[in-house]
Amino acid sequence: MGKQERGTRTRQTILTAAAEVFEQRGYEATTVTEILRNTNVTKGALYFHFSGKEELAQGLLQEQDEAALVPERACRTQQLVDTLLVYAHRLQTDALVRARARLAMDQVSPALDRREPYLRWRTIMLRLLEQAQAQGELLATVDPAGTAEVLVGGFTGVQSMSLILTSYEDLMTRTCALLRHLLPSIATAPVLVSLDLSGTRGAEVFAETQD
Amino acid sequence: MGKQERGTRTRQTILTAAAEVFEQRGYEATTVTEILRNTNVTKGALYFHFSGKEELAQGLLQEQDEAALVPERACRTQQLVDTLLVYAHRLQTDALVRARARLAMDQVSPALDRREPYLRWRTIMLRLLEQAQAQGELLATVDPAGTAEVLVGGFTGVQSMSLILTSYEDLMTRTCALLRHLLPSIATAPVLVSLDLSGTRGAEVFAETQD
Repeated sequence: MGKQERGTRTRQTILTAAAEVFEQRGYEATTVTEILRNTNVTKGALYFHFSGKEELAQGLLQEQDEAALVPERACRTQQLVDTLLVYAHRLQTDALVRARARLAMDQVSPALDRREPYLRWRTIMLRLLEQAQAQGELLATVDPAGTAEVLVGGFTGVQSMSLILTSYEDLMTRTCALLRHLLPSIATAPVLVSLDLSGTRGAEVFAETQD
Repeated sequence: MGKQERGTRTRQTILTAAAEVFEQRGYEATTVTEILRNTNVTKGALYFHFSGKEELAQGLLQEQDEAALVPERACRTQQLVDTLLVYAHRLQTDALVRARARLAMDQVSPALDRREPYLRWRTIMLRLLEQAQAQGELLATVDPAGTAEVLVGGFTGVQSMSLILTSYEDLMTRTCALLRHLLPSIATAPVLVSLDLSGTRGAEVFAETQD
């Protein structure tokens, strides 16, 4: 294992440890000492990669989220649905994904750029909506930019409500319900009738990406 | 002014001061000392009414929110729209309402019952949807309980996205966009065409309640 590869691994180990602490304690209550206690990395190594708590949180928020990458579908509306359902599935099953969501929601540090995840999700939704529109999947009234905002905002709220009321247990049900309410204002009837919006879809598509 | 009335006023003064500090700093970073600095109430008076920070936050979260009270409308779907638009207007204009929203979103203290505002909003939406259904305003496919969850979740997210991206400046636009996307799956066409969903509606209805 080369020096660079080892460095990348250490960085990832630290971020994973930080994610767990941030998720449990929130940004404000988390200390670097606690993150160190949660890993076997030395203090020196941590500070070599990150200047402190803020850079750790920033690092987590900026990390490319592979959750956004789902298999391409001929029907772009289905691909959009899959993207949200896979993310819901990952929130239910992956501490790192949950930590990022929590950091984005915590309003504790004005220094943290909490806009980043919203902007990234908006870009992902917008691109898929534009492709769907080009293929004639959307209603004539749809403005992809406005609809992308509604999808990201709506999903954000559904997930924070699910977190607070049920610790994400009902997240898949809530996400599907949101999509069932929104999609009739977005996609044409022939698209709607072809969509798979079942509660197991997220887990199935995620398994597909792991092959 | 009687003793009891004076007590109620002091309690309100303290809650308002606490609201401002909680809104700016978040739950975790707020101290009772800071709240005291923001009011002319004595330390003794504050501790007579509240045992500490947690009870102050709890007091804010539990306070009846008059935002939920909008004038009754023959069309219950319009009343539901008005309820959300007035709340959006109050979030844009009232620090106390913003502080409550922030406390509900902050994931910092597991001791705080952050479920309360969600449950209250769900109850308000559900009651209006049931009345709308009884009057034949809703599509036959609507399950009022499920739709109430989607409305509360969707609105929650739209407002946190608006807060983070624009400090609530575009909240009215986002709320109207969300409703325009959701309502076609909820209300019948004759109801939809009669609705006032304009950007000034929230301020107008709020002014009506202040007469």
